Amino acid sequence: MAKIETETRGNLRLIFLLLSVLLLVLFTWLNLSYPYMPSNKAEILDSAASSQWCVSTNRLLKNPTRRPQRNHNHSSDTPLHPLDPLTIQEFNKVRRVVASHALFKSKPYVLHSVGLEEPDKSLVLRWKYGDLMLPRRASVVARVDGRSYVLTVDLDSGRVTRQEMVSSSGYPSMTIEDMNTAMSAPMNCPGFNRTIMDRRVDPADLVCLPVSSGWYGKSEEKRRLIKVQCYSTKDTSNFYMRPIEGLTVLVDMDTHQVVEIVDQGRNIPIPKADNTEYRYSAGDVHREMKIVNPISLEQPKGPSFTVENGHTIRWANWEFHLKPDARAGVIISRAMVRDPESGEMRSVLYKGMTSELFVPYMDPTDAWYFKTYMDAGEYGFGSQAMPLDPLNDCPRNAYYMDGVFAAADGSPYVQSNMVCVYESYAGDIGWRHEESPITGMPIREARPKVTLVVRMAASVGNYDYIVDWEFQADGLIRIKVGLSGILMVKGTRYTNTNQVPGAEDLYGTLLSENVIGVIHDHFVTFYLDMDVDGSDNSFVKVNLQRQQTSPGESPRRSYLKAVRNVAKTEKDAQIKLKLYSPSEFHMINPNKMTRVGNPVGYKVVPAGTAASLLDLEDPPQKRAAFTNNQIWVTPYNQSEEWAGGLFVYQSQGEDTLATWSQRNRPIENKDIVLWYTLGFHHVPCQEDFPIMPTVSSSFDLKPVNFFEINPILRMPPTGEDDLPVCKDAASV
Amino acid sequence: MAKIETETRGNLRLIFLLLSVLLLVLFTWLNLSYPYMPSNKAEILDSAASSQWCVSTNRLLKNPTRRPQRNHNHSSDTPLHPLDPLTIQEFNKVRRVVASHALFKSKPYVLHSVGLEEPDKSLVLRWKYGDLMLPRRASVVARVDGRSYVLTVDLDSGRVTRQEMVSSSGYPSMTIEDMNTAMSAPMNCPGFNRTIMDRRVDPADLVCLPVSSGWYGKSEEKRRLIKVQCYSTKDTSNFYMRPIEGLTVLVDMDTHQVVEIVDQGRNIPIPKADNTEYRYSAGDVHREMKIVNPISLEQPKGPSFTVENGHTIRWANWEFHLKPDARAGVIISRAMVRDPESGEMRSVLYKGMTSELFVPYMDPTDAWYFKTYMDAGEYGFGSQAMPLDPLNDCPRNAYYMDGVFAAADGSPYVQSNMVCVYESYAGDIGWRHEESPITGMPIREARPKVTLVVRMAASVGNYDYIVDWEFQADGLIRIKVGLSGILMVKGTRYTNTNQVPGAEDLYGTLLSENVIGVIHDHFVTFYLDMDVDGSDNSFVKVNLQRQQTSPGESPRRSYLKAVRNVAKTEKDAQIKLKLYSPSEFHMINPNKMTRVGNPVGYKVVPAGTAASLLDLEDPPQKRAAFTNNQIWVTPYNQSEEWAGGLFVYQSQGEDTLATWSQRNRPIENKDIVLWYTLGFHHVPCQEDFPIMPTVSSSFDLKPVNFFEINPILRMPPTGEDDLPVCKDAASV
Repeated sequence: MAKIETETRGNLRLIFLLLSVLLLVLFTWLNLSYPYMPSNKAEILDSAASSQWCVSTNRLLKNPTRRPQRNHNHSSDTPLHPLDPLTIQEFNKVRRVVASHALFKSKPYVLHSVGLEEPDKSLVLRWKYGDLMLPRRASVVARVDGRSYVLTVDLDSGRVTRQEMVSSSGYPSMTIEDMNTAMSAPMNCPGFNRTIMDRRVDPADLVCLPVSSGWYGKSEEKRRLIKVQCYSTKDTSNFYMRPIEGLTVLVDMDTHQVVEIVDQGRNIPIPKADNTEYRYSAGDVHREMKIVNPISLEQPKGPSFTVENGHTIRWANWEFHLKPDARAGVIISRAMVRDPESGEMRSVLYKGMTSELFVPYMDPTDAWYFKTYMDAGEYGFGSQAMPLDPLNDCPRNAYYMDGVFAAADGSPYVQSNMVCVYESYAGDIGWRHEESPITGMPIREARPKVTLVVRMAASVGNYDYIVDWEFQADGLIRIKVGLSGILMVKGTRYTNTNQVPGAEDLYGTLLSENVIGVIHDHFVTFYLDMDVDGSDNSFVKVNLQRQQTSPGESPRRSYLKAVRNVAKTEKDAQIKLKLYSPSEFHMINPNKMTRVGNPVGYKVVPAGTAASLLDLEDPPQKRAAFTNNQIWVTPYNQSEEWAGGLFVYQSQGEDTLATWSQRNRPIENKDIVLWYTLGFHHVPCQEDFPIMPTVSSSFDLKPVNFFEINPILRMPPTGEDDLPVCKDAASV
Repeated sequence: MAKIETETRGNLRLIFLLLSVLLLVLFTWLNLSYPYMPSNKAEILDSAASSQWCVSTNRLLKNPTRRPQRNHNHSSDTPLHPLDPLTIQEFNKVRRVVASHALFKSKPYVLHSVGLEEPDKSLVLRWKYGDLMLPRRASVVARVDGRSYVLTVDLDSGRVTRQEMVSSSGYPSMTIEDMNTAMSAPMNCPGFNRTIMDRRVDPADLVCLPVSSGWYGKSEEKRRLIKVQCYSTKDTSNFYMRPIEGLTVLVDMDTHQVVEIVDQGRNIPIPKADNTEYRYSAGDVHREMKIVNPISLEQPKGPSFTVENGHTIRWANWEFHLKPDARAGVIISRAMVRDPESGEMRSVLYKGMTSELFVPYMDPTDAWYFKTYMDAGEYGFGSQAMPLDPLNDCPRNAYYMDGVFAAADGSPYVQSNMVCVYESYAGDIGWRHEESPITGMPIREARPKVTLVVRMAASVGNYDYIVDWEFQADGLIRIKVGLSGILMVKGTRYTNTNQVPGAEDLYGTLLSENVIGVIHDHFVTFYLDMDVDGSDNSFVKVNLQRQQTSPGESPRRSYLKAVRNVAKTEKDAQIKLKLYSPSEFHMINPNKMTRVGNPVGYKVVPAGTAASLLDLEDPPQKRAAFTNNQIWVTPYNQSEEWAGGLFVYQSQGEDTLATWSQRNRPIENKDIVLWYTLGFHHVPCQEDFPIMPTVSSSFDLKPVNFFEINPILRMPPTGEDDLPVCKDAASV
């Protein structure tokens, strides 16, 4: 191992002088860019005037071919539903309450998260529009004096009503300042700068990224550490493809000190910029590929959904509450579907969200082993969800919703267009039947399939995660994760596979000269507090098993039989899927039957079933033990929402879904929560270079004897009169 | 077992008189309806004037809200590509050649199939538009004198150039006359009529269906048998929900005789018609559910694809040949994709089609055990594909293609609008990346995902199979099967589950009073003659396996490693998928490398992985042994296209993919064929009553190091100017 101590060696004064100037410029520029580092303490942070997000917005607005975005001023928002997120006024109140609290008065502190503390479920279930608003509370995670605290701020009284010091192994999610600190810390370090010079990178071309370092034993404990790796932006905006391989800087996020610099990549060239650019504006127009005529989803009578009071969505037979969340990204609450027979709204899902991600890379070497991301708890899946690009991220008929989050000092800022909602029609068929002529019945009936999509896209560094909640009129909810964005690649000396002694030792695929796409997995774990026609539900495993017939019973030797097993306790519901011993997984309400006596239910229909194959005792797998099974069911517990634990950063795995479930609590006919993990194995291929075509997987929540009959039986077919008359914009 | 002999007992003369009149009416009506039973021998069968299909067409045309269909007159069609299907003139020539052939001159014969005999692959590969047309040949399957023959008719010389008597256990696909014969045979049988009276069914309300009887041992051998089961159409068009349970009539299709009548259902009521109707025209308008505003896929500049010479489709970077087929449904040939760097068209798939289906029901009792359908080889997946319903089966921007098939006497008829082709846009994202503000780069790039869909829908009796071939500009082909239509249900005495002693013994789910939805599986096996950049390919299993690290090697204990195994012979490529020992399955061209040395390839990405769990020695599983694995690879052999054998009806399983593959031929660096089976387990639920919301599964053929870089990198984003200006039709 080639370690460079952080002390100065040699005389490089001139270079330092130049670097200092550059760094000064860089710092000024960075600091001006961030809303969470405001110099003034305005009540409302005008992100549209000062933030990096705003730069993107302006770029868009300058482009006359794009539709300008609805720019809602959130300063006068008031909460209208008990689950509505904190408003700007509420964030500011929390900020003031915290600032004057004894704990924080005299010491510098950082707020790692500020968000709504949802009222008790029982209160929310009883509440309806028109009732008095339930008391509003905020949950605050703060660090002061090297300690982490969880506080409850009562917004009505303006008091801190709960204050708890947290002694678990992990730390709260990083703030953007943490990331910023990490990125800039190496620049103060002569050893680092010398290495950069050695690698012939102009510091002006340098971009460094904060890489959560996981937890790998004692040496890394009791300090909030992060690893920083750097790239060259020379000749490309796609710096991810130009890694300064092998250079890893360990930084203490609390002291802002560089702890260690390791450079093992000095004989690895930085890959060339050729073919890496993906921006349209930078493209070579002669090679442009305009191969498909424009196509658009058009709704002549307008969309069929409404957004009431900012967060309640009503569409077709569905109603649900939708809010952006800094950690989960998007939270769907109180999803209810109308019964076509009785007309009543029936409960399906009390709360659904992305709970945690786990993204282990499959390279055990020094600069890579620690890359085992848990994006929601470490980076914030919502705070990394950038504004969606109208017409390209979502179709023309989309509605956009902003997120309002708090910076590290508590100041609110607006994440504009973070979520979109639209009706989708891909030309698919809801149901159909055509009668064979042999019956003599001239029947041809078909219904188009139209759905409602709620979308967000989180850009957690290089990767882009597209999360869709798709509601179907037949009662099905499809939860889909799309992976796009840019690979995390590794530099190598090889320019052709014929130079590689053992191809398996690449830990991935040679994508281009000197670029390896490293094998990795993605696991996205969803929290699904199902309330099927009420809170008390049971989990039933319906095993499909082969039954041999008795001699003489039948000309058949075998058939499949469905055997129902009701889970009594949590261990009965720790499910590893089996291909050759398949089951259906029902969440039923044992207290409510259909007319002919089937318990009403929803089933989770697994897909994206890739499982984590790491050693159970491997540190990253212990922290991500929630991926040990694809399905879990736990009793409802307000404190058990984040599958990797509340404090995931550098956690040691003592507070995960796996540990809670180990208690083996009763789950039959109780308020229970379903957890499902979507998994992907990703062996990169050249098509993923320099930016990846989206790969998606989804799982379904599907009604199973929930309705008496097909709930879309009575939908009318589409006729020509229903459709719009359209013209090419240029011809109008 | 209560068996009623086919002789007359008792005196029921009056009833017989009445029945005879009814039967006469029924027969006349049925015979008038079918194009394949023409009384005149016109050169072109005008199906638009005489067929049942035509009734449907007329019904549509009468409805002013639907767009009238393009009604192409096929009588002057000429073949322009060696793979073009037989034209009407060619069908007529075949009919004349066969009629004057020695074998058929003096005896009644039936043509079970007439279709193009594709020229040698090597010739087709060399052929291009502008070249002389290759010699045209037809392949004919005929039965005469109780024997089956396969003939080749040379269309240029007008001679039969091959004539082969087939001695395998199976029989050719049924003709529509076979089905018709089967349906009407019981009506001549007093025992049957008495039973119908006993069950209180008015013969005027009776509909019977021909159910392929499978093969279950000696008693059913050496006769072409079929089982007939009947339903009541009283008060509903959805007679499938009103089974006359337990009544099974065994019919000899060659002698037209009833062999046996079994009635074990006399104490089972016929379920009521309540809630079974699904036709819009019959609906109760007050309960209509108009919950979604119209939505349409609009293309202001028109579609981006062209149909050249009737069958060659060009879209975006794709080109392929498309034809309807009476057995396979749809055949995709010579699919090629343009390389964005070189501009050349590169071969991906020489031929792809649905090869066979296997649909075993999971009820071993007398009236159900034999229901183990093989829809393509028994019924004809294409000949059961009815006209698509514009705006409901396919969106407004769809193009429709007709099928031209031959009736049992060789007369051609047109299956109009059997296939549709359209561009789809669901609002999804082709690729995206947004730069985190921490890098200071204001980047937000996204591209909408537009695809091309080729669709057909086969209504094989009750079930509707929707088969989509979806082409993506990123090189991916998605093959999707949607299941809709109507369940095959079983009558029962039970009206509530609380009356059922052991719920597992229902063999299904109580869906409504007296109606059980029986558990069943669907397997759809695809033939995929991949030619990745040429015909000689290899199959590579890339195993993702856990690698433990050595002590001291890494803070990590484990990681996943990709280990490549090239299949040498067929047995290496008999793949049972494994959840916890996952693999990628590549079809590579070992003779062609990318710039950095990866073999160019495509991978099959499995999904819909339900496996058949029947006993391997169970007669239906022996016949459908091609479902013993999800993936197989065989050397190309023109005679190995139908996974269940050429003659599937009553086959004993001696000529399936499994037997061919057993030969264990070499497959490395050879012209090879990939087989993939999509599987579904279906435990019915009440939502499937009375007609099923579509359930879909799909698998992908995905480029893997086929392109040097992401092939859609240079696609432009959509701007507002690209989109149409639309108005509500009513406002124009």
